[in-house]
Amino acid sequence: MTEPAHPTGEGGLGHVVRVRIDLSYDGTDFAGWATQPDQRTVQGTLEDVVRRHPPGGGQPRHLVVAGRTDAGVHARGQVAHVDVRIGEPVGDLARLAGRWNRMLPADLRVHRLAVAPDGFDARFSAARRRYSYRVADAVALADPLRRRDTLWHGRSLDLDAMNRAAAALLGEHDFAAFCRRRPNATTVRALLRLDWARDADGVAVATVEADAFCHSMVRSLIGALLAVGDGRREVAWLPDVLVGATRLPDVQVVAPHGLCLEQVGYPPDDELAARARHTRRVREASS
Amino acid sequence: MTEPAHPTGEGGLGHVVRVRIDLSYDGTDFAGWATQPDQRTVQGTLEDVVRRHPPGGGQPRHLVVAGRTDAGVHARGQVAHVDVRIGEPVGDLARLAGRWNRMLPADLRVHRLAVAPDGFDARFSAARRRYSYRVADAVALADPLRRRDTLWHGRSLDLDAMNRAAAALLGEHDFAAFCRRRPNATTVRALLRLDWARDADGVAVATVEADAFCHSMVRSLIGALLAVGDGRREVAWLPDVLVGATRLPDVQVVAPHGLCLEQVGYPPDDELAARARHTRRVREASS
Repeated sequence: MTEPAHPTGEGGLGHVVRVRIDLSYDGTDFAGWATQPDQRTVQGTLEDVVRRHPPGGGQPRHLVVAGRTDAGVHARGQVAHVDVRIGEPVGDLARLAGRWNRMLPADLRVHRLAVAPDGFDARFSAARRRYSYRVADAVALADPLRRRDTLWHGRSLDLDAMNRAAAALLGEHDFAAFCRRRPNATTVRALLRLDWARDADGVAVATVEADAFCHSMVRSLIGALLAVGDGRREVAWLPDVLVGATRLPDVQVVAPHGLCLEQVGYPPDDELAARARHTRRVREASS
Repeated sequence: MTEPAHPTGEGGLGHVVRVRIDLSYDGTDFAGWATQPDQRTVQGTLEDVVRRHPPGGGQPRHLVVAGRTDAGVHARGQVAHVDVRIGEPVGDLARLAGRWNRMLPADLRVHRLAVAPDGFDARFSAARRRYSYRVADAVALADPLRRRDTLWHGRSLDLDAMNRAAAALLGEHDFAAFCRRRPNATTVRALLRLDWARDADGVAVATVEADAFCHSMVRSLIGALLAVGDGRREVAWLPDVLVGATRLPDVQVVAPHGLCLEQVGYPPDDELAARARHTRRVREASS
């Protein structure tokens, strides 16, 4: 892919258009989002199709994504963007999405393509990410049809206890206890929502929303809450972990396949650029 | 497996106990329910485990099932029974179910084992079978995580038209037009329910319930309704098919993977034996 010196705005040959891509995938058979040598990844699979049929027949850059998911993690509401240097009109993007879907494998679907509004950046403009995590805690709830996106947990869960423990984590905190550490990266995040409810089938489903998540943060939070829910830990243990009074064992990072990126939230169009500047300033070195 | 002359009641060595098995499976990788040579089937997979760990350590017969599903068809509420000649108490069946599940592949789960009430026959006592069929009729609804149990249909569906056409089929009729023909088998069935609604995600879901179904009947009904829903056929065409005024083309049998056996209904315990006698009398030669 080309790497123009000016990723957006006018260039020497034609101009660069930014296309927003709404997509979903079953993460089971992908080695995560990010391209890796000799691995089947979401980014690599999608970029291959973008390269063969770029919007406007132009030259595409690499994809930029809102939530870089780990191997085995799913997405129903993932958002990416691609900058394309084009010399002709961008064309019928609904039709192009159909063409892409005919070439893409069935575990990856593009739901919508659109020219992005000014200031849009799939990663840095995003104001919120919402994930779900599904747990079947009784054998009667173990639906083989949902085994790829549902954790089968051998002990029954007390959702009330989990919700009490979760409530203590809401707000802006340093979530270092729940994050894989990276040098020079802040682990301060604003946790907007974390609660559990049973769906119509009785499966326990967590909803987790934050401005952004650091690496392994959702799966660490869920793993810790499962320990509270099945009685291995007290409700009061979780706030102690947050303030660093207790170290979270590594084993608490729960399996990836119950996790799904449900939605990415963006501010109104006229605040996109400001939001992107703010995000870059706060966590330039962070993920 | 042994084939005792007296499948129920007292025998020469010990006695025969009938165990009801509630189970579910993802039909994707099974060649249907019924055992076939050199094929991975639900019956074959389950009987293998039953034979290795039979209830009460006894001698099991072959499984009998409520709804013999075709290759690729799923079940969330399948019911089977197995007769076992035992010389000792049947033991803790909840514990045995756990043992079976640890040996079974993840696409097949046993939800419950119980000693069947007198007169119970998984197949012949059943009074109702309820199936669902899932169709995503817009690209935005094509969830890769549900691709194994959801048909992706290229044209949008008019559920009102489908429901009007479906209503004309309710009641007891000869459904020969929708059935694969078998010699000496009646194709008269009582269609108790057939309607469509969109679920929370917008996916069109059919609910189909009858006393029993003949072979390929559900998938023929769904296929015909899809033709009405996407405008290829008029609403009035379907009643014409039912009375034989119009032949249903073979292509109308829709793909198996959208279909799932959701529930099997049995009468109260004191009516089980009478129901089984009634069913045998009416459609002994039928499926």
